[in-house]
Amino acid sequence: MENFSMVNPVKIIFGEGMIKEVANEIPKGSKVLITYGGGSIKKNGVYDQVVKAIDGFEWYEFSGIEPNPHYETCMKAVALIKEKSIDFLLAVGGGSVLDATKFIAAAACFEDGDPWLILSKHAEVKKALPFGDVITLPATGSEMNSGAVITKAETQEKLAFGSPFTFPKFSVLDPTTTYSMPPRQIGNGVVDAFVHVMEQYLTYNEGDSLLQDNMAEAIVKTLVADGPKALKTPENYGVRANLMWASTWALNGWIAAGVPEDWATHMIGHELTAFYGLDHGQTLAIVLPGVMTVLKEQKSKKITRLGREVFGINDNDATNRTIKAVENFFESVGVKTHLSDYGLGDEAIEKVVSRLSQRGWKLGECENITADVVREILTLRK
Amino acid sequence: MENFSMVNPVKIIFGEGMIKEVANEIPKGSKVLITYGGGSIKKNGVYDQVVKAIDGFEWYEFSGIEPNPHYETCMKAVALIKEKSIDFLLAVGGGSVLDATKFIAAAACFEDGDPWLILSKHAEVKKALPFGDVITLPATGSEMNSGAVITKAETQEKLAFGSPFTFPKFSVLDPTTTYSMPPRQIGNGVVDAFVHVMEQYLTYNEGDSLLQDNMAEAIVKTLVADGPKALKTPENYGVRANLMWASTWALNGWIAAGVPEDWATHMIGHELTAFYGLDHGQTLAIVLPGVMTVLKEQKSKKITRLGREVFGINDNDATNRTIKAVENFFESVGVKTHLSDYGLGDEAIEKVVSRLSQRGWKLGECENITADVVREILTLRK
Repeated sequence: MENFSMVNPVKIIFGEGMIKEVANEIPKGSKVLITYGGGSIKKNGVYDQVVKAIDGFEWYEFSGIEPNPHYETCMKAVALIKEKSIDFLLAVGGGSVLDATKFIAAAACFEDGDPWLILSKHAEVKKALPFGDVITLPATGSEMNSGAVITKAETQEKLAFGSPFTFPKFSVLDPTTTYSMPPRQIGNGVVDAFVHVMEQYLTYNEGDSLLQDNMAEAIVKTLVADGPKALKTPENYGVRANLMWASTWALNGWIAAGVPEDWATHMIGHELTAFYGLDHGQTLAIVLPGVMTVLKEQKSKKITRLGREVFGINDNDATNRTIKAVENFFESVGVKTHLSDYGLGDEAIEKVVSRLSQRGWKLGECENITADVVREILTLRK
Repeated sequence: MENFSMVNPVKIIFGEGMIKEVANEIPKGSKVLITYGGGSIKKNGVYDQVVKAIDGFEWYEFSGIEPNPHYETCMKAVALIKEKSIDFLLAVGGGSVLDATKFIAAAACFEDGDPWLILSKHAEVKKALPFGDVITLPATGSEMNSGAVITKAETQEKLAFGSPFTFPKFSVLDPTTTYSMPPRQIGNGVVDAFVHVMEQYLTYNEGDSLLQDNMAEAIVKTLVADGPKALKTPENYGVRANLMWASTWALNGWIAAGVPEDWATHMIGHELTAFYGLDHGQTLAIVLPGVMTVLKEQKSKKITRLGREVFGINDNDATNRTIKAVENFFESVGVKTHLSDYGLGDEAIEKVVSRLSQRGWKLGECENITADVVREILTLRK
């Protein structure tokens, strides 16, 4: 096991009917800004529950945060915060709304130039406005970590940041808020959570961090068991609760503590979203089987372990069968796994390869995934 | 899944050579009190590492904290804290030292009478001194929770408390500090951690909290795989690291969030320690197989699940075989599982039953373990 230091200070408030608890979590006298997306929270009753909960606070709202949230949109919220002297943010929605809110919280306090530097140059976040969230989509894990991914529309760049100041103070997870989500988003969410675990588990490392491995498998087994059920029976509370909680654990940092991490699949996938607007989950479903295939030798012990513990695969061809089982699992939750399924081909591959080549990134836990290896990975996924 | 609210704000600093990090975690200018036990930390070099780390702070020390730490001892530390105006505590040792330090931290700030009321009457803890720890024994989980168990020597009472103010600010876990621990303490620690998981897992509940169940099994599988190895090869870093980290997770609250809890084994075991001085782990090894046997029907689904997932038991007699497998596991780490192994019999049983009867406690997740049921449980363990 590698040495590590870690804390996760997020308070989790979980269960049906818990949205009202936000009233007890926001400091008295705060001026609150509710941030949200396209308005689905107005259709499913979540907006009304939140507004009722914050009755008595001075509050404002900022809507229109898009999927793969834009830097440009975030900066409009920052302007509103300054105008109204807002001092607490409450994100209501999925991972995109929450990611945007993390960046808004940091950008509102940033004093060293253009806040885009936080993403483009890893400029240090020295403080941030406090914020909480009501999360309505089991997928990104953003509700229990300090990271966020933001896109600059102008330049089609999708970049990540994180800071000790951008942990939510609290996150409310009410599984019933996910009942009305479209199947496509549920499927994407299951894939996203699954791949989050793989980025922290499916590395060269095997047997040296038994608890982390066992816990990673615990999360994945939950996703594999209940992901398809969530699509078949959308209002099964237990299934939605398990899925929501497993998605949170897939990226709250604890299974990454003390182990190497990969993240190549995410980095490659981000480019497909930035250039072609594919859903985040779709890009991961395309890329991961390619990464597993090309890095088969390096990751062989973990691939066979995943096969044995999660998919019950125990034979001589376990590596290939496990890669196929992962691909089949993604398809089983309705997420297509090839570039051609989305009308993409060689041109898209070259565009992604070219940008990664320009950046000079070497991806993966062994930093051996160069632009040429990315071409190999994506070519397998045509 | 049940509704829950939970936060665990403890910063974990894990790995060989990490003790020096305490210097960066204690607020500058603090007056520090190091608390410890019988002096084993002076033999294994931990004391020297700690003293070197806090060079530059004004510091004092308080030693002599016994296993099953005494209220009477804790109050001597409180007197020293008041005399020296100490404002930060650093516990160095095992769970007993840390439990004592939690109580000392709360008692030093208690203004509503005798601090024993915190234990005997659940008097509210409204504040506590901040504290951190260097934990040297993988067992109690105290390093990542807010609970503590304290014994009043005068009346032979062993009671628990917890408060949001008694989470450690940080916990340093260096697996090499456990190399010199006697096998008896390692064995006891493995049993303690195993039973912590069982108290949160082995209930009437099955299938309704899949992630928590899978995570509980992840922890237990780690203990079952590496517990015996820790005794055979005491200086195997990876094994000691896995064991230490699994013990922490066995009682950091996350596997209990959203599920029912039992704790009957601990409550009964505490009485055996209070009256006869048995090691905590020994009492658990005696009691748990009895609880499993008498509550066999209520807990049947979880017992067979434990057998299948952890011990590979899949046959018709799975319940009985799983109970036997648990007993065998305890014996495999050198902890005896019957009262007679410790020279106890009917007299001890009646003494425990009599006290629990006086208290009127009904134990277990269904509150159906009355004093008479405790007699039945202990009689099976003669």
